[in-house]
Amino acid sequence: MARVLTPRAEDFPRWYQDVIAKAQLADNGPVRGTMVIRPTGYALWERMQAELDARIKDAGAQNAYFPLFIPESYLRREAEHVEGFSPELAVVTHGGGKQLAEPVVVRPTSETVIGEFMAKWVDSYRDLPLLLNQWANVVRWELRPRVFLRTSEFLWQEGHTAHADFADAQAYARRILHEVYQDFMVNVLAIPVVVGRKTARERFAGATSTYTLEGMMGDGKALQLGTSHELGQNFAKAFDITYSDAERGVRHAWTTSWGVSTRMVGGLIMAHGDDSGLRVPPRLAPIQAYVMVVKDGEGVGDAAAKLVAELRAAGVRAALDDRVDTAFGRRAVDAELKGYPIRVEVGPRDLAAGNAVVVRRVDGSKTPTAVAEVAAAVLAALDADQRSLHDEALAFREKHTFEVGTLGEALEAAATGWARVPWSAVGVVGEAEANKQGVTVRCLVRPDGGVPDSDDEDGLVAILARAY
Amino acid sequence: MARVLTPRAEDFPRWYQDVIAKAQLADNGPVRGTMVIRPTGYALWERMQAELDARIKDAGAQNAYFPLFIPESYLRREAEHVEGFSPELAVVTHGGGKQLAEPVVVRPTSETVIGEFMAKWVDSYRDLPLLLNQWANVVRWELRPRVFLRTSEFLWQEGHTAHADFADAQAYARRILHEVYQDFMVNVLAIPVVVGRKTARERFAGATSTYTLEGMMGDGKALQLGTSHELGQNFAKAFDITYSDAERGVRHAWTTSWGVSTRMVGGLIMAHGDDSGLRVPPRLAPIQAYVMVVKDGEGVGDAAAKLVAELRAAGVRAALDDRVDTAFGRRAVDAELKGYPIRVEVGPRDLAAGNAVVVRRVDGSKTPTAVAEVAAAVLAALDADQRSLHDEALAFREKHTFEVGTLGEALEAAATGWARVPWSAVGVVGEAEANKQGVTVRCLVRPDGGVPDSDDEDGLVAILARAY
Repeated sequence: MARVLTPRAEDFPRWYQDVIAKAQLADNGPVRGTMVIRPTGYALWERMQAELDARIKDAGAQNAYFPLFIPESYLRREAEHVEGFSPELAVVTHGGGKQLAEPVVVRPTSETVIGEFMAKWVDSYRDLPLLLNQWANVVRWELRPRVFLRTSEFLWQEGHTAHADFADAQAYARRILHEVYQDFMVNVLAIPVVVGRKTARERFAGATSTYTLEGMMGDGKALQLGTSHELGQNFAKAFDITYSDAERGVRHAWTTSWGVSTRMVGGLIMAHGDDSGLRVPPRLAPIQAYVMVVKDGEGVGDAAAKLVAELRAAGVRAALDDRVDTAFGRRAVDAELKGYPIRVEVGPRDLAAGNAVVVRRVDGSKTPTAVAEVAAAVLAALDADQRSLHDEALAFREKHTFEVGTLGEALEAAATGWARVPWSAVGVVGEAEANKQGVTVRCLVRPDGGVPDSDDEDGLVAILARAY
Repeated sequence: MARVLTPRAEDFPRWYQDVIAKAQLADNGPVRGTMVIRPTGYALWERMQAELDARIKDAGAQNAYFPLFIPESYLRREAEHVEGFSPELAVVTHGGGKQLAEPVVVRPTSETVIGEFMAKWVDSYRDLPLLLNQWANVVRWELRPRVFLRTSEFLWQEGHTAHADFADAQAYARRILHEVYQDFMVNVLAIPVVVGRKTARERFAGATSTYTLEGMMGDGKALQLGTSHELGQNFAKAFDITYSDAERGVRHAWTTSWGVSTRMVGGLIMAHGDDSGLRVPPRLAPIQAYVMVVKDGEGVGDAAAKLVAELRAAGVRAALDDRVDTAFGRRAVDAELKGYPIRVEVGPRDLAAGNAVVVRRVDGSKTPTAVAEVAAAVLAALDADQRSLHDEALAFREKHTFEVGTLGEALEAAATGWARVPWSAVGVVGEAEANKQGVTVRCLVRPDGGVPDSDDEDGLVAILARAY
């Protein structure tokens, strides 16, 4: 059989592009750096949205929608913010057939415009906390685009909240970090992320603290899968978000922002994919069980349709493939590429013996199973395979993470994986040095794995790696 | 009590703006013509999305995502299309700090870019029909913006499909029209839309047939709530969407497109709202039953919380309002403004008698109800009130629709409602004449209410009205 994908060991970036093309996840768009997300890829994003949206609502935030176009002047109000985003902006100069009096930027993120409206909506302490989220597209011009990972336009959710004091803002930024993002990534995406604090150099433009969730990809590099920021009173002062408090008079609010994006689709591919394609964790999978008619035969089509109905009744997201005019082998390769967790193959020979074959994507195992027991077998396999994918990724991360003592050793370790090194052995000077060699401080963590309150705590561990 | 809203009879447009502001549905954005959709308004849109998305998937279409930015040259490939959209385009000339070699337009709609990719993806007849949908923002520069109804940026879904022949394309455009849009608008939005065919003058730029769903608003004007287009082979020829067919060689596909937008939120307000605010149909309502603690008292909070739990267990979308530090009257006015279908008021006096008060937004009736019977009463009321809203809107439409015989009579009728007049008595000359007086042909229908295949069928009825 012809080789479908470039093997990962041969050329990981090429393998990544092959998976995206062959599994029909996405295409490059006509404007440089943009992407077309095809149905198979978009279904992954829709499932991510559904899982995250439920968690975000549980955390008390409400969805809203703010405009795509932001007056250029808004970005200038917060000095660090404009500096951070200026080189990445797309600017609209003409609208309705005329040159605009003031050019508008296409939002690279919405802190500024949301700050403007928070200022209008917040009056007294009773209006706080104000917890908003939006699902939207944003644009950051990319010089070296890569589908899902760095694209000039991407889809994301961005949460923006305002609070009465520092403690409440910090608690909320961390609640989102752990209860929404970490829970989703570990338990749904099956990616054992490391959660930590960005150094001053790596912080979001305008933030006082940036927390991050970092996943290890199949080539040992790191991918930042999400961030949550404390913005202090920077945006509240720039946009005059104030509230009155009976005891203490008029005060500026404290704000946070937090986001995850379609970049997670890239992370999913690179964390779990193998040389046959994608492996989608069962809890995320849009199609969990793919019931395939191997070829026509007495009762085969009916048996397959009945299995789909039974699986759905058992709460499994099941789909039927009865395209017998396409060769079975080709369809099976396509199902592997797309990473459906379970295939249930229904063919005349097995069916005559009362069986269908349950094929697990995670390990490729094929088990003839009595038709009446397929639903139970699928449920058990989905559960086990969710755990396997997580545990395999965790073992891989542990194998490729090295405890070292010096910057030199850390840079060496970062050639193949992650280095854990005392932050005191790196520091801001060592960090700049590492950056020159293509290695970044992904985050700082406490020795016990906890998330630091500042870069200056004693005994912090820095995680250094090459990153996407 | 101070007047909350301008009465509809006094100034309908002012009433509309008052509802949007006071019910906190939306604000004007900082860039002219854009809007901020606040949580209360966005929750309505989310429910519309959920209901429509399920129907679109049932019709076999798959969600995908195409880029916001489209090369200017794409729009020029289909002559009518570029002519239709040129005056409305927003153009990005700068990206990443540099002037772009080719300016890009912000999508006003995605026929062109999707056409380009359909051409890549469609090869043989087996690839057809190709049924795609996307949820996205689009931009059409508006000179006279009006929140939800005409905004420079709006949210919508746009479906795009390719078919092997005319009959299949036509059948699909109509399936969406009836099974997705009409079903949703009549049965969920409770708006008794008239479904018909647009005249050549009113057709979408590049379409061969445009079908529309028109609702009557509370001032007798029409609002186009959605459209479905047959595009013939116009876009297939412009973008070279071809497929090979064993029998007939290489042929151009036939395409359709169809969309509904946040404009429906405006339609919902104007079709059902009254002088106290919004009235949201129960099937759409994000909050169907709003359980209010009237004031503190023994067991009141617990009883209210228990009612919310019981209502949720019965499948009702219920929310608790226990903000007893805000005056009850003010909260009740707010609940009316936001149009929650049912309020359940729980106060110490009623509770002592074992009762809560069920208040129906549709007719304002207040019924003391034994606590144990509240859930059943709410379920029955939701069902009845969904029907009432529809029937009231239908009676209103019938009362304000006039059967007339001449263009003159039709123009007169359009001052207060809709005119039904023989299309033969209007014609393209009469249509142009009507347009000068601010009246448009909303659609053509068959005498039996069916949707015509062409503008030239015998006996067609034209519906003339002023419109948003």
